Amino acid sequence: MSLGRMADHGGEWLGGTGPESDIVLSSRVRLARNLAGFPFVNRATNRQQLDILQQCREQVLQGNLADDMIWADLNDCDQLERQLLVERHLISRQHAKASDDLPRGVAVGANESVSIMVNEEDHLRIQVLRSGMQLTETFNQINQLDDALEQRLDFAYSKQYGYLTACPTNVGTGIRVSVMMHLPALKLTGEIDKVRRAAKDMHLAVRGMFGEGSDAIGDLYQISNQTTLGRGEQEILADFQHTVVPQIIAYEKQARQALIRQKPTLLDDKIWRAWATLTHARLLRTDEVLVLLSHLRLGVNLSRVDKISMRTINELFLMNQPAHLQKIVGTELDPVQRREARATLIRQRLAAL
Amino acid sequence: MSLGRMADHGGEWLGGTGPESDIVLSSRVRLARNLAGFPFVNRATNRQQLDILQQCREQVLQGNLADDMIWADLNDCDQLERQLLVERHLISRQHAKASDDLPRGVAVGANESVSIMVNEEDHLRIQVLRSGMQLTETFNQINQLDDALEQRLDFAYSKQYGYLTACPTNVGTGIRVSVMMHLPALKLTGEIDKVRRAAKDMHLAVRGMFGEGSDAIGDLYQISNQTTLGRGEQEILADFQHTVVPQIIAYEKQARQALIRQKPTLLDDKIWRAWATLTHARLLRTDEVLVLLSHLRLGVNLSRVDKISMRTINELFLMNQPAHLQKIVGTELDPVQRREARATLIRQRLAAL
Repeated sequence: MSLGRMADHGGEWLGGTGPESDIVLSSRVRLARNLAGFPFVNRATNRQQLDILQQCREQVLQGNLADDMIWADLNDCDQLERQLLVERHLISRQHAKASDDLPRGVAVGANESVSIMVNEEDHLRIQVLRSGMQLTETFNQINQLDDALEQRLDFAYSKQYGYLTACPTNVGTGIRVSVMMHLPALKLTGEIDKVRRAAKDMHLAVRGMFGEGSDAIGDLYQISNQTTLGRGEQEILADFQHTVVPQIIAYEKQARQALIRQKPTLLDDKIWRAWATLTHARLLRTDEVLVLLSHLRLGVNLSRVDKISMRTINELFLMNQPAHLQKIVGTELDPVQRREARATLIRQRLAAL
Repeated sequence: MSLGRMADHGGEWLGGTGPESDIVLSSRVRLARNLAGFPFVNRATNRQQLDILQQCREQVLQGNLADDMIWADLNDCDQLERQLLVERHLISRQHAKASDDLPRGVAVGANESVSIMVNEEDHLRIQVLRSGMQLTETFNQINQLDDALEQRLDFAYSKQYGYLTACPTNVGTGIRVSVMMHLPALKLTGEIDKVRRAAKDMHLAVRGMFGEGSDAIGDLYQISNQTTLGRGEQEILADFQHTVVPQIIAYEKQARQALIRQKPTLLDDKIWRAWATLTHARLLRTDEVLVLLSHLRLGVNLSRVDKISMRTINELFLMNQPAHLQKIVGTELDPVQRREARATLIRQRLAAL
């Protein structure tokens, strides 16, 4: 598996096979770890950064941590390849954008469900990403990874604080738990703001997967815990697993049923306009596609449109993005050319069904 | 032919068979006439208004002026029927809205190409409306009507001023010449404002067929002469026939060719989005439909879409309007119900092709 071949198909989490995957696209757990005996990345000398990279890379690749693990040296990647990794949620935006003086990379394996960034904000950022609502499985998998790595690497740990991390919000367990949720009905009924406020009261962060600030274009929301210090992993996870996520799922389901009962024509209007435009437009902008895909996804989930698989729609969310689009087309495109290529690609994918 | 059966199909001018009918939807000539020996409508007593109505009605119907002439007494029509006549350009908005104290009506014949309003601003407003660019034919036809009526009715005429009319802008020949033009390419290329300014310099009025003020929703423009005093009928007509309209037609054609050469994808995007939305939406507003029909009409004219006849599109422009929609559905609808009925009607009409 090389970076080049990544663009054309999605990772495991895109399959839409996990539990509750009509609403929960993916479950993600991330750990932050640092090597003992080295300063944090932003305090380390270039020599030390290189040492960290080499140690981590070696142990990650030799550790047999996940199937088909590949390594991408970000300093060897061009901008498009880095952007591709960002769009696939395998590396962070910061990791892609960092100065090329900083030696850094990422290991990806197990059908993209595992990624390990080296020399991001922390020496190691370990991520497991799975389809649907699978927080327990995801948590167990990342724990095994963590244990396996800890046998090979000496992590900075304080008896008082727990795992030490570059940013105080990660100190302790270093864990961040998040789910990516598709909440189109709560948006259409106008109840999404209530959910946002409730989440905020519970000290959770709600971010749009796409779009800046409070606008979640495509109705995709990433909901995550904000602080880790002073709280056990199990407690953080239990909150998510048993309270937060099931409640939001229930709200979204209620909103969907309410739409079907009270505004079926409005619902079908959104769904069929989306289908019509995606299968006929000759020029499409990223943001417009996100909105249309969101409505189409809702239509498929509610069985008001058939013929389209959840995987196809989830993949189009990914392929819609600039780096994916250019990788698939095989050439760099300016924004105007991209609009045309995007429309062509989407028409072809949806027509081929 | 009754008013009730009108809604479901269009008049002669909708056929799209006249010359240049890809750009000129219709040619219209209108004459204003008043009976000698009576005050103008707004100065007449109710008794006099009734006398005028009876005289005009009798002579218009007995004069054998046009095939299948029918009479509609506006005081007997309900609001929906009056609105229907307005939407078909058979009576003016003022004529529909006038107080019910004013006895008034309209005679319609020859497949709706002839209409004669009685007791609008003037005692008689005679209109001939034909498909495409047919100003000469339209002018000849209205002249015959005028002559025939003048043999039966005594028109107020001054040797100094010509025909006397309630508003000074109509005094003289009392003639107003207009064409309804579809100018989507000039709108897309942004050149429509130049045409507007040029028309204004030539003392022509440019109005949107739909939409208030300067916005011509659906890219349909009615271009007409503004004053008649001091200018002969032939001169007014020649201006239109040989200078104004051919020039605008040439501009629009150039703009269409420029779009095909320079922005074919933008053009097809507009056309196919319009087709897709009109054939899939479940809720449609009047204004949105006008915009979409305009782009679809352009697509048909440029042979980028087939299967749709010009008559179907022209008729949809008409049926899209509230009174037509309600007449076709056969029941009164609130604005929300109309959106759904409009979408259903349009889907059916376009699917039946």
